[in-house]
Amino acid sequence: MSRPDLRLSGLRRYFPILTWSRDYNRTVLTNDLMAAVIVTIMLIPQSLAYALLAGLPAEMGLYASILPLVAYAIFGTSRTLAVGPVAVVSLMTAAAAGKLAAQGTPEYIMAAITLAFLSGLMLLVMGLFRLGFLANFLSHPVIAGFITASGVLIATSQMKHILGVRAEGHNLIDMLTNLIAEIDAINWITLLIGVASLAFLFWVRKGLKPLLLSLGLKPRMADLLAKAGPVIAVALSILVVWLFALDERGVAIVGQVPMGLPPLTSPGFSADLWGQLFGSALLISIIGFVESVSVAQTLAAKKRQRIVPDQELVGLGASNIAAAVSGGYPVTGGFARSVVNFDAGAETPAAGAYTAIGIALAALILTPLLYFLPKAVLAATIIVAVLSLVDFSILRKSWTYSRVDFAAVSATIVLTLTFGVEIGVSAGVALSILLFLYKTSRPHVAEVGLVPGTQHFRNIKRHEVETHDSLVTIRIDESLYFANAAFLQDLIYDRIVCDQPIRDVVLMCSAVNEIDMSALESLEAINTRLDELGIRLHMSEVKGPVMDRLKRSHFLQDMTGEVFLSQYDAHVALTDSTAGNAGQRVTAAD
Amino acid sequence: MSRPDLRLSGLRRYFPILTWSRDYNRTVLTNDLMAAVIVTIMLIPQSLAYALLAGLPAEMGLYASILPLVAYAIFGTSRTLAVGPVAVVSLMTAAAAGKLAAQGTPEYIMAAITLAFLSGLMLLVMGLFRLGFLANFLSHPVIAGFITASGVLIATSQMKHILGVRAEGHNLIDMLTNLIAEIDAINWITLLIGVASLAFLFWVRKGLKPLLLSLGLKPRMADLLAKAGPVIAVALSILVVWLFALDERGVAIVGQVPMGLPPLTSPGFSADLWGQLFGSALLISIIGFVESVSVAQTLAAKKRQRIVPDQELVGLGASNIAAAVSGGYPVTGGFARSVVNFDAGAETPAAGAYTAIGIALAALILTPLLYFLPKAVLAATIIVAVLSLVDFSILRKSWTYSRVDFAAVSATIVLTLTFGVEIGVSAGVALSILLFLYKTSRPHVAEVGLVPGTQHFRNIKRHEVETHDSLVTIRIDESLYFANAAFLQDLIYDRIVCDQPIRDVVLMCSAVNEIDMSALESLEAINTRLDELGIRLHMSEVKGPVMDRLKRSHFLQDMTGEVFLSQYDAHVALTDSTAGNAGQRVTAAD
Repeated sequence: MSRPDLRLSGLRRYFPILTWSRDYNRTVLTNDLMAAVIVTIMLIPQSLAYALLAGLPAEMGLYASILPLVAYAIFGTSRTLAVGPVAVVSLMTAAAAGKLAAQGTPEYIMAAITLAFLSGLMLLVMGLFRLGFLANFLSHPVIAGFITASGVLIATSQMKHILGVRAEGHNLIDMLTNLIAEIDAINWITLLIGVASLAFLFWVRKGLKPLLLSLGLKPRMADLLAKAGPVIAVALSILVVWLFALDERGVAIVGQVPMGLPPLTSPGFSADLWGQLFGSALLISIIGFVESVSVAQTLAAKKRQRIVPDQELVGLGASNIAAAVSGGYPVTGGFARSVVNFDAGAETPAAGAYTAIGIALAALILTPLLYFLPKAVLAATIIVAVLSLVDFSILRKSWTYSRVDFAAVSATIVLTLTFGVEIGVSAGVALSILLFLYKTSRPHVAEVGLVPGTQHFRNIKRHEVETHDSLVTIRIDESLYFANAAFLQDLIYDRIVCDQPIRDVVLMCSAVNEIDMSALESLEAINTRLDELGIRLHMSEVKGPVMDRLKRSHFLQDMTGEVFLSQYDAHVALTDSTAGNAGQRVTAAD
Repeated sequence: MSRPDLRLSGLRRYFPILTWSRDYNRTVLTNDLMAAVIVTIMLIPQSLAYALLAGLPAEMGLYASILPLVAYAIFGTSRTLAVGPVAVVSLMTAAAAGKLAAQGTPEYIMAAITLAFLSGLMLLVMGLFRLGFLANFLSHPVIAGFITASGVLIATSQMKHILGVRAEGHNLIDMLTNLIAEIDAINWITLLIGVASLAFLFWVRKGLKPLLLSLGLKPRMADLLAKAGPVIAVALSILVVWLFALDERGVAIVGQVPMGLPPLTSPGFSADLWGQLFGSALLISIIGFVESVSVAQTLAAKKRQRIVPDQELVGLGASNIAAAVSGGYPVTGGFARSVVNFDAGAETPAAGAYTAIGIALAALILTPLLYFLPKAVLAATIIVAVLSLVDFSILRKSWTYSRVDFAAVSATIVLTLTFGVEIGVSAGVALSILLFLYKTSRPHVAEVGLVPGTQHFRNIKRHEVETHDSLVTIRIDESLYFANAAFLQDLIYDRIVCDQPIRDVVLMCSAVNEIDMSALESLEAINTRLDELGIRLHMSEVKGPVMDRLKRSHFLQDMTGEVFLSQYDAHVALTDSTAGNAGQRVTAAD
């Protein structure tokens, strides 16, 4: 199949900006600018909130939304992906940095910056070595389960801000225990602000747009205003806290946010620190990449555009390195924001760069206004955003469809909730690979016989077929490789031990797309054993490429029997059909 | 396929002794006793030598050859497997224990005993949960490469005893560097003994049996004497060292070996120790199991007997636990000894128990005689034994047959030699699984067209076939699951983006044995995207079990197109064959 986009010349391959910038014109500019305005309005409160979730100062959320977006605009292949801080990756950052230092310490911040750098480096290396396929080993149900469980963890982790108490923890049990222990310390004013914000934000999400439409606003305007909901909540709450001096009555506020552009920062380079963060960075990279690429792919397909997953790795890698050198923390492509960007009409990655300019202006001008912003409002923003991620229906769906998938998804959910994000997602991936390896190590194999009056061979257990006492034909419905080589050997030995009058065994290879070296050695061992028992081994319907490879080994010379072009040829040659059919019998379907 | 042996009642399943002991009679007893005598003669010097290789006192080799053999006789399913200390596992024990303590210290011995216990426990658990299939993921070339590299490491590690110097190291570079540094310290008498033993043992192996046969001895007697070669070398060298008091001239000897039956020992139970030994114990368990099961299987098949791999895990687990409580160290089924046992006529696992009695008698009576045994002779025994394991031809064979296998085997050999056994074999396993996952994540997919005048569909790149501009038919030659779900999506999006007049896409599923939930979601996504572009998605030749499962999901209702029983039906329905064939074209083979 042709893949013209992959045949780009070297520079174009690694700098997609060279491709789309050629056709840049005023219409595209207008569309990109419009989308950038909407995304900026949405991103300001989100970036502050996700920094809070990651346990970092609010300004780091803004910094993570400036340079990384510019880097993605240069290196990314998706035209509408909105890169920046996202909920799940922020939670994973908190879990990883929390293992090394306490929140609020310079070591914690250094860990987050180093995490962005390491994760960027890993993504870049994976992209340059085209290892994007690694992400395929996160099965969909495992991702769905992980995102759902993470959503629950994130929402729970924000309850402390809504209640105005201190309660840490990286898993559900710890969080709930700590929250309950603090029940007496609830700050009622904070709780009021939190609950009011939650109610307002839920209403904005469900009820505002229909209301505005019924008031006669144009759909696009109604949409824009609905997206501005969090900004309105932020502005109102700042006003209320400032007017009534609620910060003096125990309402936790964001406080001093430095004004200005992102500072130049350097990640840590100690081998010790890298060693401690390696596993976490790898998980963040892969989860971030999978989340990002799936939304990018969905959006690109809608416009018959395409993304290049390996170049996406480069784009996200560059973004994270940009985050690390400009005071940010790990970023990736966000689901909700990208959809908004797409719906708002973004046509090129330049929209992301314009968003970066918007956020940079906010960092330059608006930061003093954020002083009185209550943390409860940011927590409410997060809760409303992540609850849309929570979807336990995956449990029911996977139960109905496949028990193997159900096992993987339920383990992921339970382990994420009880042991945290890192153990949860690692276990999910390990389990789905293990279950997959298990399945492939026991391929479907059928003993077949001739359907009377035809040249077709079918499973003796399902069909009424002719068989012969001296001939066993085994159809293998899978490629043969090391994982199932031993299985094949066991199976044939079992079959032979059970049945004495056998003289010929035929392996029907119509579904065998490959025979690797382990399987070849198993075939050699089978051939030798059968020979010792006076039984010949034959093969039929071997595919061309498999045959080519077998010819390069000694197996075909050593094989006691023949290779037949078709199973019917084998049947005719090996059963003396004219000689009264001494051993022939017809097996009934059971 | 029927597996009658697996349907044993509970007790018989876990105690194979209950099955074979029923038919035990005098003939079987005589055969087993004869085999036990031969194996005992072979095992006495081997067990001492392998203890030396593991860096343990000589008597631990004897202890590891008593109770473990009895345990295997009760729980094992192979009738001829000879369990006990073996070269590769001894080397791995030295590598693992050497990480925790120096050779000769009580901590080192405790580590070896705990290793046997942990490994026994793991094998037992794997057996009870039927996880024997895990061993299938060691591909044959990786095992072959690992055994070859281990053989080189083992032979090199014994050079210090032949030269009479001190030189440690767990990889080839360390060992050679240390040997060269000690070149001035060579003890020439030791070297003379070592070289003479090597020459004698090689001659025994190659030349003694033909000589004895030409002298008119019966083959069986000649065979027995040839097997006694190492015992003769041991006896002669003891005599020489004692006569000339060579130990006073710097020849390293075995020294005091405690007389008596194995002591009762207890493994360590600290969580810390278990944590440090866990990975090593797992590697030893799996390598030991693979080595053991492959020889057991080969020998069983020769007599139309069979072994039950999951029960073998139980048998080896019991043996290792027995080793741990009786002063031994990790054991497994040895290749050479098992073949000797088989050739000598062993008929039941009782032969192993009789061998245990033989070794127990040796421990009771012969140990004082071992005082003057030079270590150089034991080293020579090891070198001669392991050099038969070394076979670099696997490199050439895998290069010719498959580059993927070659990559795995060469990485295993290079890493084992440069970084030691544990890293070597782990990397080999990881690499072969990774390469396998990579292959399966990119299944063979072909765009097909109708072979004119038939109802057959073939690859448009290989055959001259009819295609239609509005219809794309894609045949997938692999089950669809999470590893290749994304690949399928990419492929179809690419194909669609390239080609505008497409109205129908047919997925031909004749080789799809499974569609897991990730693949189902990919199909749903493909269906939605195609729908948005005004293209219908169809399937053809879907197998029964796959169809059953699809019917339990919403996919079939949501699918824009139809499921066709045969690809030809799809072709007829989707191409308006009567309407002048507007878009039809015949592609030539390229």
